[in-house]
Formats: sequence, C-alpha cells, structure tokens
Amino acid sequence: MSKAPKTPATSPEVKPKTQPMFERIALIGIGLIGSSISHAARRAGLAGEIVGSARTPATVETAMHLGLIEQGFVSASEAVEEADLVILCTPVGLCGPIAKEISRSLKPGAILTDVGSVKAAIVKDVAPHVPEGVHFIAGHPIAGTEQSGPESGFAELFDGRWCILTPEPTADEKAVEKLRKFWEALGSKVEIMTPEHHDLVLAITSHVPHLIAYNIVNTAAHLERVTDSEVIKFSAGGFRDFTRIAASDPTMWRDVFLNNKDAVLDMLGRFTEDLTELQRAIRFGDGDKLHRLFTDARAVRRNIIQAGQDTAAPNFGRSPSATSKTKPT
Amino acid sequence: MSKAPKTPATSPEVKPKTQPMFERIALIGIGLIGSSISHAARRAGLAGEIVGSARTPATVETAMHLGLIEQGFVSASEAVEEADLVILCTPVGLCGPIAKEISRSLKPGAILTDVGSVKAAIVKDVAPHVPEGVHFIAGHPIAGTEQSGPESGFAELFDGRWCILTPEPTADEKAVEKLRKFWEALGSKVEIMTPEHHDLVLAITSHVPHLIAYNIVNTAAHLERVTDSEVIKFSAGGFRDFTRIAASDPTMWRDVFLNNKDAVLDMLGRFTEDLTELQRAIRFGDGDKLHRLFTDARAVRRNIIQAGQDTAAPNFGRSPSATSKTKPT
Repeated sequence: MSKAPKTPATSPEVKPKTQPMFERIALIGIGLIGSSISHAARRAGLAGEIVGSARTPATVETAMHLGLIEQGFVSASEAVEEADLVILCTPVGLCGPIAKEISRSLKPGAILTDVGSVKAAIVKDVAPHVPEGVHFIAGHPIAGTEQSGPESGFAELFDGRWCILTPEPTADEKAVEKLRKFWEALGSKVEIMTPEHHDLVLAITSHVPHLIAYNIVNTAAHLERVTDSEVIKFSAGGFRDFTRIAASDPTMWRDVFLNNKDAVLDMLGRFTEDLTELQRAIRFGDGDKLHRLFTDARAVRRNIIQAGQDTAAPNFGRSPSATSKTKPT
Repeated sequence: MSKAPKTPATSPEVKPKTQPMFERIALIGIGLIGSSISHAARRAGLAGEIVGSARTPATVETAMHLGLIEQGFVSASEAVEEADLVILCTPVGLCGPIAKEISRSLKPGAILTDVGSVKAAIVKDVAPHVPEGVHFIAGHPIAGTEQSGPESGFAELFDGRWCILTPEPTADEKAVEKLRKFWEALGSKVEIMTPEHHDLVLAITSHVPHLIAYNIVNTAAHLERVTDSEVIKFSAGGFRDFTRIAASDPTMWRDVFLNNKDAVLDMLGRFTEDLTELQRAIRFGDGDKLHRLFTDARAVRRNIIQAGQDTAAPNFGRSPSATSKTKPT
C-alpha cells in the first residue's frame, strides 16, 4: 500500500470558484479512462480531492507522479472510504469482485458508478453488493483511444462524446441527476437507457467493429502467400485503419466479449448474413448491387460528421509528414 | 471539347532547374489520384506540361481552374497526343475501353501506365491495345483518402507510401526504371511484383478491409432494434472508423471487386473462417483464446507504425475539438 503525504485540496491547478460537486472522488483503476476522468474533473474543478487505487504499486506510483490522484492505494476498500463518488474504471470482469470487496467501506449516500463497455452483466454482478443507502448507477462514456495506462489519459477525451447511464427504475432521481451533471461537466452529452438496450447498441457500434478488426489483422498475419512484411508495407490501402482498433487493450476486450455474448453473437449473425450477400454479388458480378450498397454506406459517414462524432478531414486528418519516415529528397 | 489557351511551360510554379523528366504528361481522369499526381509532379518539377482529360466538361473546367492541367479535353485520344507519359487515373473498369480509344493516338516511345487498384485484369484489358513502341507498365500507388474529385488531391499524398509496378517480363528496362524514378520523385517508395501477386496482397490489405467496412455500415443501417440515430450518436466506440473507409468512391470500389474476384473471394473465405473461430470462442466463453488473439493483433499495429505507414498518435491524431461541435461551457 502506497499512501502519499496528503496534498491540500486547493493545489494550484484545482481552484473551484464554488464548492466542488464532490468532496472526494475515488477512481478504482487508473488507466486511459480513469486518468482522463481525473484530468477532466480537475479542468472543471469538480472534486475537492481525487484518490485512487490500482492493482500494482507501480501504477499507483505513476498516477501519483502524474498528479492524477492525491492519495493512492492498492486496496480498493481503502480508496473508497469517505468518497462521495466512486468510479470503477477497471476491465468489466473485475467490477463484480471489486464491488464485493468495497461493499462494507462505501460511505452512506455515496454514488457508485462504472465506465464499463457492457452494462447488463455489470448491473447483475455489482448490484447485489451495493449496500442500502449507496446509489449505484451504471455508466459508459463512449470515448477512448487505442492506448492504455495512466499516461494515456487527457482532459478532452469526453468533449462532445456521449455518456450512457443505465440506472435501475428504482434509482434515486437526485443521484442520477447529479451523475448526469458530473458527466456533462466532464464535457459529455448524456443519454439514459436500459442496460439491455445499451448492450445491443454497443454491440453494433463498438463490439462487433472491434471483433472484425481483431479478426482481419489475425487473418492477414496467417497467410502463406502474402508475407507479414508485405501486409505492413502496403497497409495504407485500408488495413492500417483496422490495426488501430485492434491495438486496444486485450484484457478489456476479452471481458467485453465474455460479458455481452448474446448481443454480440446476434449482431455478428447479421453481419455475416450481409457479408454473404456481398460475397455472392461479387461471385456473380452483380455490379449494380455493389454500387447501390456502397452508395448507401457513404451517406452514413456524412451523418456522423454532421453529428460532430468524427472529423471531416481526409484520412482523419492524419498528417502525411507525421506518418512517413522516408521523405523524398 | 474544352481546349484552353496554351500556358507557357515555364509558368511561375514550374521551375525545373534542369530538363524535366517528361516534356508532356497526360492524365486520363482527374480525381483524387490524378490531381494529386499533378500537385506532386509540379512540386518536383517533373513535367514540362501537364494536360488531362475527364469525361465531363465540368470536371475539365474545374481541373483547369485549379491549375492542375494546362490543357483539358473530354476526349482521351486528344489528351494523349504528343504525351511522353500517359497515366490512366480512372476507375478500373474504364482502363480497357480507354486503352482501345487512345491506341492510335499514343506517341511512339511514350510510357503508358495506370493507377488502378487491381492489376491482372488491367494488364489483360489494356495490353492488347498497346501499339508497338509504346511501353505499357501497370502501376498502383498505395495511397488515398476517402475523398474523390479534382479538388481532393494534394502534393503530399504519395510521400512515404509505396507504389507497386507490375511490368511484364518483356517490358523495356529503361522505361521501367524511368517510371520508378518518376514515382520516387513524387514521394513514393517503389516495389516491383507480378500483377497476380499484387492482387493477392491488395485483396487482404485493401479490398477485403473496404468490403467489410461497407458491410458493417450497411448491417448497422438495417437493424430493427437499434435506430440509425443511435448508430450515429454512439459511433465513437469504433464504428466511425469503418465509416471513413466506407465513404470511398462507390464506382471505383465496384470495379475493384468485379475485377479482383478470385483473390477477394479467397481472402474473404479466410476471414470468415477466422471469424467463425472467434464467434465460437465467444459462444463457449474461451477467454484465453480471445486474449491471445487480441494480443497478437496489437503487435501488428506496432510494426505498421515502426514502418512509417501510420501515425502513432492516439485516434490517428484526431483533434477532439475538431470533431465535437458541442463544446462544454
């Protein structure tokens, strides 16, 4: 357990003009999302103090060193003591065990939430361990990068992105409203839905895309007639886009697929059915069908850009000079 | 036919210190690739004069207005007259018919090349129309964006990217060497291989990735229980990356799939086989297998970044502020 000397709540970068929204926020897990929440919460002056726990002393130390937390623990139970807001920022599979572990240390009246990419399984795993008087409201910010760890976070991660909350029908309205305001202050827009609907929506907008990205990267790596070196050299034809997603944290994604099995298999069935139709159109040279389907897909891109969910810059605005080491002479 | 007054070859932006590599370059088709070749050739001072043709007078006019060409035609035959280098920059399906059309107008000693994303079909379609004394060498720069049209080109498109040439074994060595030097001067690295091997490599690094991107976008658009609006709002979870690729030109891609059928169906078979294995691992909760496959995929990303074929910046370096219209207050 690595407990650092307490930093005053009014350190130079934290100057809330009024009372902060939460006196003490506890981050359980300090990876990309946990560290970004810290940056964004400090930017908005939302916390009197941010504390956190990680499984390894090294991560706790890094988080302290980066100024992400004022106190660090390897014990989640110790981290949540006296916290008004506890955010589980671990892979999905750890949320249930951690909820059980911290159950008796949670402060009455506290809000307990999470950031996991699946919701029904987390609600099922966590809810039984939540004591009377603690408000458990599951959540999921739809934001991230392919990078992991406490160094990868930044304050702007949630700006303009959606955060989905999936409170139970019996949840305390004031607590839900407070958590909504917290995410809005981090930069997000907030939507409320059931855990089951969340899992269905994310299966198609996130989980299946990651699965097929992982899959094509592995398919490409195991060909006999095309070398790995060729795949890498000629990846700018489209393949490289998939490798970005496939560089995401393997543990996080293993847990997503193990915990959203039904919705993922459902959407995967649709995907394969549609792919079979395209395959057949190619085999029989049905150019009209291909052209029609490709044209439809273009419209979806336009809508995403109009909704502010992606950049209109070609190639995502990748700078050619930033990506090429060999410059022409 | 829109023929503009001839601009002197030594216009302000064209100041080759020495004799340019080609006195006259003719671009047949002036979309993303054609216009980028013009920009990059002017940057390097490779052409005495650049002329071009497009199917519609409006495109010819735009290309003239943008300074991409000094003379513009709607007739490809007229455009290639007196040209030392003729580059077919049209969708793959048009290369054969255009080769037939320009056959009698090609200048003896000229180099004829193309930029199509498939090579065996183009060689088969074009070669029979190439007159004695003209050097036909098929080519394919592995570079592009999701945008189309003469306004979308830029000089840096080929910097650090690979260009594949697929000359026949009987091709003139000096002509191949000259075309290689041309692409290197545009910023590319050059590799030579057979048309058949090109088509196999590109099937996995470009064609199948585009097909599955088009496919998942269409799958998402036809769900009953998830609305289009939800797909768009929550696309930052991964889906939006696929929509970029799926915004590419439908005609170009229709032609690619119609003309690289065998290699695409072969690679698609592999992809589906591997996806079925992943699907099975999800169904039976085989977390170890998922974790192992996901970890392997991460290494491929690292290699692509090391090879200078993509940026290491998270999210491709997308600026959060550039992509969000709704800023927090």
